[in-house]
Amino acid sequence: MKIFIVHAHPEPKSFNTALCDLSVRVLADLGHDVRVSDLYDMRFNPVASSADFLDRADPDYLVYALEQRHGYETATLAPDIQAEIEKVLWCDLLILNFPLFWFSTPAILKGWIDRVLISGLTYGGKRFYDRGGLTGKKAMVTLTLGGRPDMLSDDGVHGALEDMLRPLLRGTLYYTGMSVLPPFVAWHVPYISDEARQGHLKAYEQRLGQLNDLAPLTFPSLDEFDDNLARLKD
Amino acid sequence: MKIFIVHAHPEPKSFNTALCDLSVRVLADLGHDVRVSDLYDMRFNPVASSADFLDRADPDYLVYALEQRHGYETATLAPDIQAEIEKVLWCDLLILNFPLFWFSTPAILKGWIDRVLISGLTYGGKRFYDRGGLTGKKAMVTLTLGGRPDMLSDDGVHGALEDMLRPLLRGTLYYTGMSVLPPFVAWHVPYISDEARQGHLKAYEQRLGQLNDLAPLTFPSLDEFDDNLARLKD
Repeated sequence: MKIFIVHAHPEPKSFNTALCDLSVRVLADLGHDVRVSDLYDMRFNPVASSADFLDRADPDYLVYALEQRHGYETATLAPDIQAEIEKVLWCDLLILNFPLFWFSTPAILKGWIDRVLISGLTYGGKRFYDRGGLTGKKAMVTLTLGGRPDMLSDDGVHGALEDMLRPLLRGTLYYTGMSVLPPFVAWHVPYISDEARQGHLKAYEQRLGQLNDLAPLTFPSLDEFDDNLARLKD
Repeated sequence: MKIFIVHAHPEPKSFNTALCDLSVRVLADLGHDVRVSDLYDMRFNPVASSADFLDRADPDYLVYALEQRHGYETATLAPDIQAEIEKVLWCDLLILNFPLFWFSTPAILKGWIDRVLISGLTYGGKRFYDRGGLTGKKAMVTLTLGGRPDMLSDDGVHGALEDMLRPLLRGTLYYTGMSVLPPFVAWHVPYISDEARQGHLKAYEQRLGQLNDLAPLTFPSLDEFDDNLARLKD
């Protein structure tokens, strides 16, 4: 499989980065082709702006999604965006590897999403969810966080982790049509023993060996809705 | 009331920016003190990194939240962060004014959250939710989006908007202790008539006159949980 890992952690010696490094090694050993975008190392620019478009469909008024379409069609997107798009199109599996910041991605990764998952290519009009532009690909989120599993469970203080990750898992990854594998979560990282961290690494290695067998998360199909996106009656 | 608006849209002529401009005018007319951080205009840096700390508690290993605490205690946070923190502490109401990007904030605003809502001040240990560091303040989200209300309703294709906004409304704003007012949403903006846009502006003006009367959203209180954050039995 072709696997593209987008990694975003500000500390190269972090446990989160260790997970990323482990995955590169393990996936190569398993025979996969692996590419990595280390956003901090690349000093990736996360700010969606008019500077992303070398030629403007409308130079006077920026509608970001429309300029994304124009930029892609005319090959005039900023080169850093174009390079990331090529990696997304190349891969069979996209892994986002990041620490949970405010129950979400760090801004540098949010900006990768804003700038790289462009309108027209990954979605557009009624091409989203299981009709999105990236159908056939898989995606997985690998994250580290400070909380314990009981704090992010249905009855926990924050509710289920999947509910907090909804805009990312459903609203972003599934939105583009990708099959979203269950997140791999290393819990409570700042507070645990080295032994427990080793346990997380072992569990991740095991998970990486199961990529072909994992059932994706279940989200609604557009087949459940009519042309106006109203839910069809049974 | 002291009101701090954080605005994030890449197009100064956008309808989103018009909402922000309207609110500045209307709120001043109502006798409020208003400050605005226009993140695009400020070229705000959204990337949380070691550069945010002029003096490091641990120069060899970056734990971002711990350095936030150290930086605040020793007044060695980067000046752009310090300036935003002062505005947050000054205000009675924080308004986040932005277009929905991937069911979330644009990265430039996510980075404002990552860098400005610092550990130790806005939360820490068991000081979160109704025991967070910003209790007594209010927050409101003002957003523009392309979707229609029916698409972001309980039975709609994306489910309820509040569920998509969960990491922001509950996981961020309420997490710091703020009372979170219902979002103000300008729907379907790219597709509607000028008349409909005028309707949104009118509705926003009306909303701004009701800020003192609006009931905040309801989230769990920490009183519902024991010292281990397990839910107390009735």
